[in-house]
Amino acid sequence: MTIQEKALKAHEEWNGKLDIQSKTPIKDREALAVAYTPGVAEPCKVIAQDPEAAYKYTMKANTVAVVSDGSAVLGLGNIGPLAAMPVMEGKAALFKEFGGVNAVPICLDTQDPEEIIKAVTYLAPSFGGINLEDISAPRCFEIEEALKAKLDIPVFHDDQHGTAIVVLAGIINGLKVVGKKKEDCKVVVNGAGSAGVAITKLLLRYGFTNVIMCDKVGIVSKDTEGLNWMQQKMTEVTNPDNLTGSLADALKGADIFVGVSAPNIVSPEMVASMNRDSILFAMANPVPEIMPDVARAAGARVVGTGRSDFPNQVNNVVAFPGIFKGALEGRATQITEEMKLAAANAIAGLVPDDELSDENIMPQAFDPKVADVVAKAVKDHIK
Amino acid sequence: MTIQEKALKAHEEWNGKLDIQSKTPIKDREALAVAYTPGVAEPCKVIAQDPEAAYKYTMKANTVAVVSDGSAVLGLGNIGPLAAMPVMEGKAALFKEFGGVNAVPICLDTQDPEEIIKAVTYLAPSFGGINLEDISAPRCFEIEEALKAKLDIPVFHDDQHGTAIVVLAGIINGLKVVGKKKEDCKVVVNGAGSAGVAITKLLLRYGFTNVIMCDKVGIVSKDTEGLNWMQQKMTEVTNPDNLTGSLADALKGADIFVGVSAPNIVSPEMVASMNRDSILFAMANPVPEIMPDVARAAGARVVGTGRSDFPNQVNNVVAFPGIFKGALEGRATQITEEMKLAAANAIAGLVPDDELSDENIMPQAFDPKVADVVAKAVKDHIK
Repeated sequence: MTIQEKALKAHEEWNGKLDIQSKTPIKDREALAVAYTPGVAEPCKVIAQDPEAAYKYTMKANTVAVVSDGSAVLGLGNIGPLAAMPVMEGKAALFKEFGGVNAVPICLDTQDPEEIIKAVTYLAPSFGGINLEDISAPRCFEIEEALKAKLDIPVFHDDQHGTAIVVLAGIINGLKVVGKKKEDCKVVVNGAGSAGVAITKLLLRYGFTNVIMCDKVGIVSKDTEGLNWMQQKMTEVTNPDNLTGSLADALKGADIFVGVSAPNIVSPEMVASMNRDSILFAMANPVPEIMPDVARAAGARVVGTGRSDFPNQVNNVVAFPGIFKGALEGRATQITEEMKLAAANAIAGLVPDDELSDENIMPQAFDPKVADVVAKAVKDHIK
Repeated sequence: MTIQEKALKAHEEWNGKLDIQSKTPIKDREALAVAYTPGVAEPCKVIAQDPEAAYKYTMKANTVAVVSDGSAVLGLGNIGPLAAMPVMEGKAALFKEFGGVNAVPICLDTQDPEEIIKAVTYLAPSFGGINLEDISAPRCFEIEEALKAKLDIPVFHDDQHGTAIVVLAGIINGLKVVGKKKEDCKVVVNGAGSAGVAITKLLLRYGFTNVIMCDKVGIVSKDTEGLNWMQQKMTEVTNPDNLTGSLADALKGADIFVGVSAPNIVSPEMVASMNRDSILFAMANPVPEIMPDVARAAGARVVGTGRSDFPNQVNNVVAFPGIFKGALEGRATQITEEMKLAAANAIAGLVPDDELSDENIMPQAFDPKVADVVAKAVKDHIK
């Protein structure tokens, strides 16, 4: 059976991947009186007096909502909220399996940003954090910004920031391997959607100064037409020489390529035109922008993909469970840029310097230490 | 320790009463590929083509949302969404413990009926049913009606219908015990809020013809001032003789009293003024409208309360888990009046005729058969 066949069969057997259990059995009158009426009135009364007590007496302390509108699901596009459920259930399962965090999949039957913002604001009291997922750009930027401003719990769009954090972790280690400094590197990020924008922002925040974004139209510059508001905003901080041209033009003399775009759009010639000791993350999934063996043959030194069957897998699962675990444990009200940088550094640090190599820059996704190390780093950077 | 002290301590230890687990461990690459990417795309694609497949591949099949705005929580009143969480978590725990149904507590940070309707409509794709809880009257009527019209999954306000179903079950058995016919009975329902209105409606649907509602102002009649729209509507089908006066006036010659109102508002004299072999449900909690021993001494024959420490406990827990279990298993799109009547009859039927007595008209809340019997009755009455 292929993975696809296995997945369909398994999903039918599971009939939903999550199970919600009572932590306490309720098998007699006393148990009912303690867990429900009349006893339950006591924690209610305390919370009514002191809202902070919700973190002591309810699941808000350790539960996030995984919220999507189904507008940009995996590589499948806008398949709507009902069809997005298996992904959100999977994400919720990963939250628990990797981070010990309860997560509830919530797929919203609206794709109007204003209504999504309202809906999430309304359901926030039940949750300690909001993980936004698979919401298309540029709507996702507007939605996340509004929710961060309105809510007093962390809001985190994983397609943006989870991806950015693991990419930065890989680049931190990649630079050690190739012996280059961030200040000296020309970086090209291809794909100016949610992930590409967030990666670019985090790289700039980390200290890269020359980052060029590309999209279907080629290099994104101040002169590019048809940009959305976020892409326009990005032209103010990227592409300092205001280059124009194609992706191929951008890659000439580049040190780092990050692709969050489409299969097979990087040619061996483009790779060959990059600087020596280039780092290349080709994360289109399942078929990357260029296959790792082809990229290496063309001269790339460190190559990562989103796939588990090649070295250097860039996988969000090393980030989001630990990030929310740390944010919840430390009662963060936001996930700040400092916390994201700390997470990236912590993920990078999971590969000891003496084990770093061209083909070993990322920690293993299934290393049970990962979430705790990331959580601690995040917690230590809560203001 | 009192129950109150035990409850507070236990809630702190639990730190949230629910635990959300993955049904499948995700400990290696293959498990990740089957439960998450890339395998998860397969059920997504099937659901995108055929929305019904959501019931095959996702937790929608067996998961309800327990939704409150915190406006009428237990006897505590409008304590808001955050403070309502312990109750909703408890309710969710009961759903699983008694009915095997997954339930997610959702406390909404709005008390505007239009916004609640929108929010619930938006989050409906993730759920197979909506259990509304602790929403104040008359807002609860408007919210439930609108949601029933908009959604294709069952919507059920348990404070209304769960209560009405167990009261009717008790009355069905009570009539057998006292040997009266519904057509001959004068019924007084005291408390014209969510439960009182729903009880009255269900009793009328069952075949009672003379039901009189009372509220703080006394008998609710066409001439009563200050009624809300639902109470006004109820005057068209209740109080056929358009009586006016006090609760004491209403009770003269009554056969059945149902109180969903306030402590100690029924006196022994009022009970003594009722017909012979009267049935009395005094469900104000924790202190009933009249204590059972006092009521019986004054002449009531069958007395029920909401409390577990007296005979004939009228407890919603014998209804809602089985009702949703049956509705979900049978893929009901609504919980109809027929399903409610079937549930009441099934609950009544759980006490065999030869075991019925003044002090034994209700099944035991912890009888593990209850939910399955109720579920089957509900399922058999899905159109």
